[in-house]
Amino acid sequence: MSLDLTRAPVHQTALRLKNGQLRVEQYAKALLARIAARDPEVHAWAYIDHEYVLAQARKLDKIPAEKRGPLHGVPVAIKDIALTKDMPTRYNSDIYRGTTASSIDAACVATLRASGALLLGKTHSTEFAATTEGGPCVNPHNVKHTPGGSSSGSAAAVADFQVPLALGTQTGGSVVRPASYTGVYGFKATWGAISREGLAQYSITCDTPGFFARNVDDLELLAKVYDLEDIPSTKFQLQGARIGFLKTHVWDLAPAGPSLQVAWEKAKDLLTQHGAKVEEIEWPDADFEKLTKWHLAIMNGEGRSAFYGHYVLDKDNLPSFLIDQVENNNNISRLDFLEALDGSARLRPIWDRFSTQYDAIITPSVPDIAPEGLEFTGDASFCQPWSLLHAPCINLPGFAGEKGLPIGLTLVAGRYHDRQVLDTGKTIGNIFEKEGGFNSSL
Amino acid sequence: MSLDLTRAPVHQTALRLKNGQLRVEQYAKALLARIAARDPEVHAWAYIDHEYVLAQARKLDKIPAEKRGPLHGVPVAIKDIALTKDMPTRYNSDIYRGTTASSIDAACVATLRASGALLLGKTHSTEFAATTEGGPCVNPHNVKHTPGGSSSGSAAAVADFQVPLALGTQTGGSVVRPASYTGVYGFKATWGAISREGLAQYSITCDTPGFFARNVDDLELLAKVYDLEDIPSTKFQLQGARIGFLKTHVWDLAPAGPSLQVAWEKAKDLLTQHGAKVEEIEWPDADFEKLTKWHLAIMNGEGRSAFYGHYVLDKDNLPSFLIDQVENNNNISRLDFLEALDGSARLRPIWDRFSTQYDAIITPSVPDIAPEGLEFTGDASFCQPWSLLHAPCINLPGFAGEKGLPIGLTLVAGRYHDRQVLDTGKTIGNIFEKEGGFNSSL
Repeated sequence: MSLDLTRAPVHQTALRLKNGQLRVEQYAKALLARIAARDPEVHAWAYIDHEYVLAQARKLDKIPAEKRGPLHGVPVAIKDIALTKDMPTRYNSDIYRGTTASSIDAACVATLRASGALLLGKTHSTEFAATTEGGPCVNPHNVKHTPGGSSSGSAAAVADFQVPLALGTQTGGSVVRPASYTGVYGFKATWGAISREGLAQYSITCDTPGFFARNVDDLELLAKVYDLEDIPSTKFQLQGARIGFLKTHVWDLAPAGPSLQVAWEKAKDLLTQHGAKVEEIEWPDADFEKLTKWHLAIMNGEGRSAFYGHYVLDKDNLPSFLIDQVENNNNISRLDFLEALDGSARLRPIWDRFSTQYDAIITPSVPDIAPEGLEFTGDASFCQPWSLLHAPCINLPGFAGEKGLPIGLTLVAGRYHDRQVLDTGKTIGNIFEKEGGFNSSL
Repeated sequence: MSLDLTRAPVHQTALRLKNGQLRVEQYAKALLARIAARDPEVHAWAYIDHEYVLAQARKLDKIPAEKRGPLHGVPVAIKDIALTKDMPTRYNSDIYRGTTASSIDAACVATLRASGALLLGKTHSTEFAATTEGGPCVNPHNVKHTPGGSSSGSAAAVADFQVPLALGTQTGGSVVRPASYTGVYGFKATWGAISREGLAQYSITCDTPGFFARNVDDLELLAKVYDLEDIPSTKFQLQGARIGFLKTHVWDLAPAGPSLQVAWEKAKDLLTQHGAKVEEIEWPDADFEKLTKWHLAIMNGEGRSAFYGHYVLDKDNLPSFLIDQVENNNNISRLDFLEALDGSARLRPIWDRFSTQYDAIITPSVPDIAPEGLEFTGDASFCQPWSLLHAPCINLPGFAGEKGLPIGLTLVAGRYHDRQVLDTGKTIGNIFEKEGGFNSSL
């Protein structure tokens, strides 16, 4: 029974929670048992209080059926860079090690709580969701490998069946990359579609909330709760769909590793077999190749003010990577920074228009499977363009790479096509999951 | 003595605080006495605890001279939409009426506190710094008139000599407009130059921290503390300076009222008399006129997600103005919204380049003196373009309008010319203050 509950799709479980067939406490107990058994190895959680979770679950159980919210009893994990009014927020930083619960929830957390979600706990992030240094969280599929970052714990907890849904954020590739490494769906919304109030700030231009789940229907539950609404578009049909495969300049730059190369060809074959018209496509404008250097310039230019408060407060406890940004030791001039801001802004509507020529666009999520070791959370360079273009995207898992580790591909669209990305991702993701070759041994 | 301390420029007082000639407690007592005497009428403060302020002052007095920060004992007021870890943050919202102190300071508050500032209290804002409904705060120069908004209390407290410096934020005209109405300097930084972490969110594209002071040297004290660094430019010299006077399309739209018209002509005369070459100039591109409708589209498009969390939490206690944004009752389509975002982004570098052709650019702050009544905090349409263009700007006070009420003009530059705006504003502001005709009777 406990095994079923931890693995059940939460959009189905949610119906049973709402009509009282399943008590929230029972569901919570199943997940907490899984966490107790597994987390000493996985280290997905920065903060979790089992007794408090159960008390919250019992409170939810007392709510009469007609007053239950759309997420009644649905367990969600929160990346530890989002303020929570009943749990501390510590940013994986020594500066905030002793911080207690906040007076308010981050806006995206308030939405979950007010919708009836059971907030299980806070998940490990890299420091301020900005560094690429990992640990203690590991990849549940192979503890010697990184789960990716910065939303390490959120991805690992979902992949490990410790929680069905988790909040993350992406500035470079912090949702899509860990989703690919851990074999789950990772959805980054259109920039601005979900409020960022109450989240740690790194890059105001790129920071974007996102979510992890093990199936797209579970993500659609959240899309409804956040009231994500698209620019109207036609419904996706795989048969006859024109699907663009966009390697981008990063393919040669990263470069693409063996597991990505295999997944890429397999994806094209699978979609062709299922009736789609697949073609390799290119960036619509040469300037798109500059997104890589522009992302770096913006991280430095915006990190400079973002970490300045922490720097003045306690420089000794700030990692050198962030000190370098505050002190501009990478010598990114204000003019370089503004060129990057304005150049990226120019490309956004070009991308939006270009993307409507295809029924779907697939692009790599990561150069390869999760690297071995916990020191480095991996290469985000395939993801950076979409963060900077403010484009909604989702990692579709399903492919098996070297060592049997998962690797996914990204489905991306123009701004405010969030629901379309989910809807299309469901169809394509089903094929990748069933025929891509990845089998979780968890 | 107490009168002197409340009126003394704080960049001078700061030296005496630092070398021990003046105790922080003594300074705090002088300000608290002024507040006790005046605030029952002015209502600038949303939260202030006199005993706590004195305790903090005594703590600061115990810090040895060599360990004192650059703002040691400098009193600063904080707009009540910035998180503070020792004072509640309530956004002038019934939803957050019972909220207690936060676990963390907003980044811009942390910087002040870590630099030794004495945080006096929280100042009145309009609801979530988003509505234009005023009260209870009044204009200290005439209690029947609005002090402007949304940073109402910050402007009024500085104008009324209750505090020398105050933090505000601007999304439309929430720094420059109340500064003009209350006859003080109001400086809005380049967007992104100061972190917005821990501030209420309305428009991620336009929300910008800013500051109020009674002289520019006091603002420069803050500019140093926030490490604002410019794109290199030449030092301003009034003699022979080419000064553009830019009415913008708003002049006819607002339209410009009698007090603005008088101040405008007087400013040109004064600068000409002092040796500058003054010329009326126009927008460099016809699309700049669209900034007015684009600002509206962006407020609606971004307010939709910004207030969504509050809406889900407690719609009944959200004002209809914000409910309309969440529910998109103004029918701004996602395409209109994106056109506004992309259009504004296109104009930013055009503005930056254009502005370098002049040694200074002057533009109206507001259509007229502060309106009578507290219901409406006034017209922000002259300020909106600079919020959207991310341009640093400052209200230079000094002119007397109808009823003897103050009216100011705005000095504006290209992005990352914050220090230039302050430096130039000092020279021009001195002339306006001495010869513009406004005399505070406070």
